[in-house]
Amino acid sequence: MELVKIREVVEKAIENYLYEKEPPMLYDAVKYLPYAGGKRLRPIIACLSCEAVGGEFIKAIPFGVSLEIIHTFTLIHDDIMDKDEERRGMPSVHKKFGENIAILAGDTLFAKAFEIASYTKDVNIAKKILRYLAIMSKEICEGQEMDMRFEKMEYVEEIDFLKMIEKKTAKMFEYGAMGGAIIGGGNEEEQNSLREYGKNLGMAFQIWDDCLDVIGKNIGKPVGSDIRKGKKTLIYLYAYKNSEDKEWLKNYGNEKAEEDEIQNIIKFFEEIGAIEYAKNKALEYSEKAMNFLNEIEDSNAKEELLKMAEFAVKREK
Amino acid sequence: MELVKIREVVEKAIENYLYEKEPPMLYDAVKYLPYAGGKRLRPIIACLSCEAVGGEFIKAIPFGVSLEIIHTFTLIHDDIMDKDEERRGMPSVHKKFGENIAILAGDTLFAKAFEIASYTKDVNIAKKILRYLAIMSKEICEGQEMDMRFEKMEYVEEIDFLKMIEKKTAKMFEYGAMGGAIIGGGNEEEQNSLREYGKNLGMAFQIWDDCLDVIGKNIGKPVGSDIRKGKKTLIYLYAYKNSEDKEWLKNYGNEKAEEDEIQNIIKFFEEIGAIEYAKNKALEYSEKAMNFLNEIEDSNAKEELLKMAEFAVKREK
Repeated sequence: MELVKIREVVEKAIENYLYEKEPPMLYDAVKYLPYAGGKRLRPIIACLSCEAVGGEFIKAIPFGVSLEIIHTFTLIHDDIMDKDEERRGMPSVHKKFGENIAILAGDTLFAKAFEIASYTKDVNIAKKILRYLAIMSKEICEGQEMDMRFEKMEYVEEIDFLKMIEKKTAKMFEYGAMGGAIIGGGNEEEQNSLREYGKNLGMAFQIWDDCLDVIGKNIGKPVGSDIRKGKKTLIYLYAYKNSEDKEWLKNYGNEKAEEDEIQNIIKFFEEIGAIEYAKNKALEYSEKAMNFLNEIEDSNAKEELLKMAEFAVKREK
Repeated sequence: MELVKIREVVEKAIENYLYEKEPPMLYDAVKYLPYAGGKRLRPIIACLSCEAVGGEFIKAIPFGVSLEIIHTFTLIHDDIMDKDEERRGMPSVHKKFGENIAILAGDTLFAKAFEIASYTKDVNIAKKILRYLAIMSKEICEGQEMDMRFEKMEYVEEIDFLKMIEKKTAKMFEYGAMGGAIIGGGNEEEQNSLREYGKNLGMAFQIWDDCLDVIGKNIGKPVGSDIRKGKKTLIYLYAYKNSEDKEWLKNYGNEKAEEDEIQNIIKFFEEIGAIEYAKNKALEYSEKAMNFLNEIEDSNAKEELLKMAEFAVKREK
């Protein structure tokens, strides 16, 4: 199926599955972020993976939408924890509705996700998928804890950092692609190939996202916001490991740094090769993702999955 | 099976299912409340309901434990929202571990609950149970939103108040008993009877809980804490509706009220018959719960369920 068609079905499904209206004080907050658009990457990956193994994409819609809803739930809670006041260029949920309603809206979305996934028709697959969603969500929480903990540390090993983004971000792509393959009736080899594809795609996506923070435009948040927040990114870790003079550190994590101080750090990251390093790492993961698709028979869906791995490291926002 | 035996198996299962250790900063917080004891009412109701329709209670353990875990998750998030610093006589999770970890520990428990329920062996039943858990959790969130909203209002109609506690508290008993009956292989009539039993038991439990706030001892929180927090309870609503002089209102919801001011409100509640009114309401629900068991064949498990409905409105903590 054409990507634009899948996206359309996903959008409609998100609207239909979030049918609740009462109490409005809760459901206005619940729908705020899912209705605000977004790339819908996770459901699209699930649908394409389903098609790539010969299934009808429509069967993966409940599962795909549940991933998008879990993604939204984590954004809402993460924004509370990280005190982020903007999301997708709008006030974050807790900024707009208050922290209590934001906690609750996240919880409600989490519950909704499992309800939605339970609409998967085949009962054996539904049970498997629901269990995977639970395990995946747990790992996402573990990743978020690591992320918060790392923020308070001056340095973490790259291997730990990669483990963190694998849990926090890549897991959802991994389970999304694998789940799609299961729903589509793929054999074990196909399930594993798509799982690895998803994982590596997720890693590429996240690392590129961190690059965008210093090179991007219109990313829905100010450039350099990771720097102001003192986020541990691959760029930071490389720069830390490879710089003797750590003068730049004094403004890293300084929320009140002047714009030119932020620009100076970005310039320093460029000079020392940190941005290049991270970009290359993202490219490596993207290539690895594509290679895992070698095991999958050619199809339109596979083409789209390949394009997605390309897009992950080419996009400007 | 004897109640003490069921409780033992439940305790062991909670410990076994919460097997994760890494990262400790997260899982110490995750286990803090589930390991702190409690009545384990929800798993016990599920197990007894399973037995009451002729099933082996052990089959209901994953489902029952998942209810207990969801219950714990809601306590953690509710305590954050309500700014409650004590729970079961200990510092609440956010007080001990900080708000961010508490949000995350709640999310992790929520995810774990679905993982645990997915260990239910029969695949058709597992899928049904997982869907019910999702719908139940959503309704619990709706109830919590109503509860928070009501706290800011001077008066709400009894019917709205009852709807709120039905969602926030009774749903879990309702689904617990129904789920147990489903797992035990009960027919539709038995499922419905136990469902109604559970709902009415939950209502009795919650209303009695509100009574305990003004008459209880050793309830793990100071007597009158609902009064200090300005909670809308049946006692409050009755007193509000039936008092012309609303002088007592000025200290209702006053966190800094003196001990004797709280005692005066309790005395006033007694005199106007508000406590008696609420107690009777709890008794009515308890009786209704017991009556629904008429449809169920006699057994030890049924005896225990009857005792539970009695206990709900006799306990002093």
